[in-house]
Amino acid sequence: MVVVAAAVAWEAGKPLVMEEVEVAPPQRHEVRIKIHFTSLCHTDVCFWEAKGKPKHPLSSFTSFSVLRYFSGFSVVESVGEGVTDLQPGDHVLPIFTGECGDCPHCHSEESNMCDLLRINTDRGGMIHDGQSRFSTKGKPIHHFLGTSTFSEYTVVHSGQVVKINPDAPLDKVCIVSCGLSTGLGATLNVAKPKRGQSVAIFGLGAVGLAAAEGARIAGAGRIIGVDLNPNRFEEGTKKFGVTEFVNPRDHDKPVQQVITEMTDGGVDRSVECTGSVQAMIQAFECVHEGWGVAVLVGVPRQDDAFKTHPMNFLNERTLKGSFFGNYKPKTDIPGVVEKYMNKELDLEKFITHTVPFSEINKAFDYMSKGDCIRCIINMGA
Amino acid sequence: MVVVAAAVAWEAGKPLVMEEVEVAPPQRHEVRIKIHFTSLCHTDVCFWEAKGKPKHPLSSFTSFSVLRYFSGFSVVESVGEGVTDLQPGDHVLPIFTGECGDCPHCHSEESNMCDLLRINTDRGGMIHDGQSRFSTKGKPIHHFLGTSTFSEYTVVHSGQVVKINPDAPLDKVCIVSCGLSTGLGATLNVAKPKRGQSVAIFGLGAVGLAAAEGARIAGAGRIIGVDLNPNRFEEGTKKFGVTEFVNPRDHDKPVQQVITEMTDGGVDRSVECTGSVQAMIQAFECVHEGWGVAVLVGVPRQDDAFKTHPMNFLNERTLKGSFFGNYKPKTDIPGVVEKYMNKELDLEKFITHTVPFSEINKAFDYMSKGDCIRCIINMGA
Repeated sequence: MVVVAAAVAWEAGKPLVMEEVEVAPPQRHEVRIKIHFTSLCHTDVCFWEAKGKPKHPLSSFTSFSVLRYFSGFSVVESVGEGVTDLQPGDHVLPIFTGECGDCPHCHSEESNMCDLLRINTDRGGMIHDGQSRFSTKGKPIHHFLGTSTFSEYTVVHSGQVVKINPDAPLDKVCIVSCGLSTGLGATLNVAKPKRGQSVAIFGLGAVGLAAAEGARIAGAGRIIGVDLNPNRFEEGTKKFGVTEFVNPRDHDKPVQQVITEMTDGGVDRSVECTGSVQAMIQAFECVHEGWGVAVLVGVPRQDDAFKTHPMNFLNERTLKGSFFGNYKPKTDIPGVVEKYMNKELDLEKFITHTVPFSEINKAFDYMSKGDCIRCIINMGA
Repeated sequence: MVVVAAAVAWEAGKPLVMEEVEVAPPQRHEVRIKIHFTSLCHTDVCFWEAKGKPKHPLSSFTSFSVLRYFSGFSVVESVGEGVTDLQPGDHVLPIFTGECGDCPHCHSEESNMCDLLRINTDRGGMIHDGQSRFSTKGKPIHHFLGTSTFSEYTVVHSGQVVKINPDAPLDKVCIVSCGLSTGLGATLNVAKPKRGQSVAIFGLGAVGLAAAEGARIAGAGRIIGVDLNPNRFEEGTKKFGVTEFVNPRDHDKPVQQVITEMTDGGVDRSVECTGSVQAMIQAFECVHEGWGVAVLVGVPRQDDAFKTHPMNFLNERTLKGSFFGNYKPKTDIPGVVEKYMNKELDLEKFITHTVPFSEINKAFDYMSKGDCIRCIINMGA
């Protein structure tokens, strides 16, 4: 048992409270890790505001106690029984979705949707025994997404812990654990634009900008950003290689028609990062017949319906969904860190804010107001 | 000018009439070919019945005169100006869709939807001058789909004429020109099942059975045929390697649920060959999350809407449409003929009937009644 500081969300929408928390030792297939840097994304904000249930068909939100973001950078402190691939001192990223290595999804080259460790917003305890490893004054505190990194120490299933290059700077690569890989992989692994091709990105938040970064890395010839917020364009173009901007509000015809006309028949690839079903339909209908590929990333509402004329498919368009950029966490994420290390991938431009752990609530403010791409939380400051 | 016998559809739904027809010499980028064997498919029957307009959003049906099926086997008689890749005596297949070699689609590795020579059910004349090369007693007769093979001689754009192995038996490979390649390629080129994977085929007509043949060639472990007609199963299993049969009418739950339960979560691949939008939705929703790929082949109605919950995509399913099996006619069809020559592909089992040219109307009867997969029309008999 270690006793550490942790930020606890006792109540939806209320500021997190710093508590002295006991962190139990890791059990079978678990590791206890020390968090050095973490971050948060809109999923945290969304669940913290208790908007999880109505917005996400993935699962419903359960009871509140610890809300800890699922991205982080950390070092293994101790390992439980049966853990053979990690040892104390390893530099690791805990990930909100895992890779057990032993289910049909892990055995498939094409899937990263592990049956055992796939994202689960309902589960507040550990898989091994259903219990929490956190408590304060004898009262258990729930885990969130199996990672719970708003704590100096946390316990995570070893299948959600990715060993990375120990030379990687802790305060940068912590953002690889979540939305950055989601957007980057959606372009690089799923849309797969060829050098010189055009790519439309719907939604220029962190995930969309990461998708644009993927398009830049792939050598896309045109990167067309689509967003309702005109302020997104400057940021997109200045730092992220977005070459053109379309604000649907500036046009009196459907945005798919605007893009089709701009590109002589449609873009080669599109990536939808907003979760709006209208944007999904637009992203699909704006790709070129014959070879266009549209990739859906944003999470829709429970009652949404994707609707299009089937001829849009018959004319040889492809529509695919993507989850966590189709990266298998343990197999593939070390390679994303290497892309940063060899300067192929730029992470710095995503980090707009940094706060010490004691000011974690400021990070929620920044994210809620939308003037922040990623805010690093320095656990040691 | 040559004077030959041709079967002319003067009126929708009425028997074709044998006429003495004059066939003009080929103009620029055209070849005149002698038809030895031809066949017909449901598209012919559909347009002959003048159902083209309501059923096919591809185009509307124009005026009737010559209706000649788009599949055939033939020998080049003469070539027009600018034709460099074909010469008299070449054994060729005329195809209802072409490959100009010079448009963005022909330049793309991913598309076969040639801008110049893509299927066009409206065009009754030749591209060069808009005129027909057929006439009888001075009255022009329209071409159909650019091929018009119900005539001893026909004139075709050289981009729609595929030179094949001269050793290939004429009375077998003529069926490669159309639905056979459409179904075969949908599986082999688009769904791409891996050895041992499961494939569901919706609709066991000629195109669906060709898709099943593709699954057999790919080494699929399970081939699940879905059809409302229980008679399809015997044929499917006896000759086409279909391992299981699902008749939606035998179940009181949605067929996608039946298939999902049969396959522990869904099939690996599905191919939709009916054109029913309900079957399209079922074919998509029955593929496995994580890696499932559904391919749409059947042509929908003009007012259809494909509708599904977007989470079905987000869970890493893929939906693609296919046209003519994604084969580029001139580049790829010679290879399909070679698959037959090296006994990888079995064509004989698709040929259920043969008629002499003088009895061509019997072929329409056979196809209309549905007891026929393919009927060969022997032009020399």
